[in-house]
Amino acid sequence: MGFIDFFRSSKKGSASLAKERLQIIIAHERTQTRGEPSGPDYLPMLEKDLLEVIRRYVPVGEEAVKVRVEREEGMEVLELNITLPEPPTSGR
Amino acid sequence: MGFIDFFRSSKKGSASLAKERLQIIIAHERTQTRGEPSGPDYLPMLEKDLLEVIRRYVPVGEEAVKVRVEREEGMEVLELNITLPEPPTSGR
Repeated sequence: MGFIDFFRSSKKGSASLAKERLQIIIAHERTQTRGEPSGPDYLPMLEKDLLEVIRRYVPVGEEAVKVRVEREEGMEVLELNITLPEPPTSGR
Repeated sequence: MGFIDFFRSSKKGSASLAKERLQIIIAHERTQTRGEPSGPDYLPMLEKDLLEVIRRYVPVGEEAVKVRVEREEGMEVLELNITLPEPPTSGR
């Protein structure tokens, strides 16, 4: 299931920019009852919380995050694209 | 970049099981200096924290989580596959 290949292939053209990137994809496959998706939609809240968690490890500015949501019958996909700040080059 | 299509296609064969699933993929593209990846590897800690965040919204047992890590030069991909508990059918 080459995930790495998938991510690599989607990065072509931007590979020359030596930036660190973090890409988070959350796919929620939902069962449906009578055409209605089951349960509440917690992806928007999850998105906020996930960013909070990531900020524990790396400083991420508001403008460094690109969010995209795709919805289809029975499936929601939330995609966060985060450009990470340059790591400090000193201290090595 | 049809993410939905990608996730859908990777689910063939299990679609008949009407389970809710949450799939989280974190791809960390790292710059490299002299062959060494930059910065600390925080994906394992991130994994723990992410599960904690998800448990705020849905009860997820230890056994319901499948974790897979792929590493390649300049890229790490962490994949969490979570089978969600059946939503309560009452109350509607």
